[in-house]
Amino acid sequence: MTPTALDIAVVGATGTVGESLVQILEELAFPVATLHLLASMESAGSSVMFAGKKLKVREVDSFDFAQVKLVFFAAGPAVTRSFAPKASAAGCAVIDLSGALDGATALVPEANGKRITELPQPALITSPSAGAVALAVALAPLKGLLDIERVQVNACLAVSEQGREAVSELARQTAELLNARPLEPRFFDRQVAFNLLPQVGTPDEQGHTAVERRLVGELRQLLDLPQLKISVTCIQVPVFFGDSFSVAVQSRRPVDLAAVNAALDAADSIELVEPGDYPTPVGDAVGQDVVYVGRVRHGVDEDQQLNLWLTTDNVRKGAALNAVQTAQLLIKHMA
Amino acid sequence: MTPTALDIAVVGATGTVGESLVQILEELAFPVATLHLLASMESAGSSVMFAGKKLKVREVDSFDFAQVKLVFFAAGPAVTRSFAPKASAAGCAVIDLSGALDGATALVPEANGKRITELPQPALITSPSAGAVALAVALAPLKGLLDIERVQVNACLAVSEQGREAVSELARQTAELLNARPLEPRFFDRQVAFNLLPQVGTPDEQGHTAVERRLVGELRQLLDLPQLKISVTCIQVPVFFGDSFSVAVQSRRPVDLAAVNAALDAADSIELVEPGDYPTPVGDAVGQDVVYVGRVRHGVDEDQQLNLWLTTDNVRKGAALNAVQTAQLLIKHMA
Repeated sequence: MTPTALDIAVVGATGTVGESLVQILEELAFPVATLHLLASMESAGSSVMFAGKKLKVREVDSFDFAQVKLVFFAAGPAVTRSFAPKASAAGCAVIDLSGALDGATALVPEANGKRITELPQPALITSPSAGAVALAVALAPLKGLLDIERVQVNACLAVSEQGREAVSELARQTAELLNARPLEPRFFDRQVAFNLLPQVGTPDEQGHTAVERRLVGELRQLLDLPQLKISVTCIQVPVFFGDSFSVAVQSRRPVDLAAVNAALDAADSIELVEPGDYPTPVGDAVGQDVVYVGRVRHGVDEDQQLNLWLTTDNVRKGAALNAVQTAQLLIKHMA
Repeated sequence: MTPTALDIAVVGATGTVGESLVQILEELAFPVATLHLLASMESAGSSVMFAGKKLKVREVDSFDFAQVKLVFFAAGPAVTRSFAPKASAAGCAVIDLSGALDGATALVPEANGKRITELPQPALITSPSAGAVALAVALAPLKGLLDIERVQVNACLAVSEQGREAVSELARQTAELLNARPLEPRFFDRQVAFNLLPQVGTPDEQGHTAVERRLVGELRQLLDLPQLKISVTCIQVPVFFGDSFSVAVQSRRPVDLAAVNAALDAADSIELVEPGDYPTPVGDAVGQDVVYVGRVRHGVDEDQQLNLWLTTDNVRKGAALNAVQTAQLLIKHMA
């Protein structure tokens, strides 16, 4: 059965993720009737190509959400917090990519897709952070094989996580350094080129940042393990695109590596890289629709620990693609 | 009491670490009588400045180790394995920086300096890898405060860990990419600029690389906890100088953060960075003689876990300086 074409809006259509989202709607032949592209005042007015047509990006402030059934929020948290309640009130299903909406259900089809049938109407969904998507895709097939006690994550985040300005800033800083010109950081608070910034955002009283908290909360939801112990350190690395995650999973019983490899290999959204080789963001993950998994091994002298390296296209698989795949699942269940 | 000046040799004097070592011998006014600079055939013939004089680097093959009392091996593992036994047989104390010598005692003065009195003569010492130095410096003052069950380390290694060629390769790859020229990897097996390589060296049957195994073995020795569970993932990052370590320490009892901060703050070789701020390799650690420690916090909802971020100059504090500081300790106890 072909689903009926829907009227859809994308808020934040001019950002890195918003643009990728529009492109993926087209690539996957998502059943769109009319597509409304929206943005905040500063970004409205430009045009984005969709299905061979140039669509003008209009101001979100004056948009009547009653015109559409489904709204993607690929904007910043502030814009999302202002306009998502209006979209919900107008009866729209909302898929938010900013993580700004309390009470929204985090969804990754490969991990907890079955929850789609239980959602209140209209649906209020979070397409999780790239880290939560990658970890959920990799750990969901292993849930039955491991008795997970704790997950330890080091997230090496690409600058594109922070949008276009951050991408330009890494390029500009790198060029200035290579040309031996004095460096004046603008977007970041210091040199990010050839450097690592081990704190992304402002830490709270306990020392954790919002992106770290978000990953923990979302992963607990996605794996349906609300009490799971997860610790995360997010590090800003001088990489343009592609987030990577070094993961240690502590299990309460020995980990059967052969079974783990078989389960990872069997998963559609995972590309398992053989021992000896290893996946990297550039060259492997970027531009791809899967999560790359490599360096599958026990901890040193610890057969109750599983170590993994994950890398994924943070803009595509980690954000826009997961949102569209979630929407595909949603429209199967919409009235 | 001023120690008597010693005749000393440095093998591998032309490498990144060897050059830094010679410079630090001068800076710290180490009591050198005659300094012999040695290298393999390819590198011999060049000159290195020491105490205002140009010293010629000679071939290690024809050197008579009976001329000196102390030899630093800052060369590769193969050269070290060939010549260190000859130096020992000639009665020299050996301080190796390559990690190639079985049976050598790993020493970091701040962690296990008291072992210097127990060494067989002539002493055979390993100045550990930069990661083991940084972790030992940071964890030694905490040993009494924590009941350490497990240490989880993500090591983000600078290209200078692999010597000069690797440093040039990162610069060359970056320039080619910025100029949109096709990339031909030479030193590394693929693009390292704007990328992460989550495997440094060839993994063994269990999936661990030699640098990962080395860090585990050395840290167990340095902390005098031979059974300690340590898991390590070493990642090659596009940073020229400065290694960084994201560390999670699992304790068998709740971690008292105030006591941890006080102990770190009191340690001479540690620069503790206040909450809110954070230390980075470039801008903080590089060129400095201390280990920078920041992001001190509990795990998320886990008061038995301590999270830390360490960054250190891998060539200086992580290698050459530790070797010279170890030598300072050693000569106090030499006949």
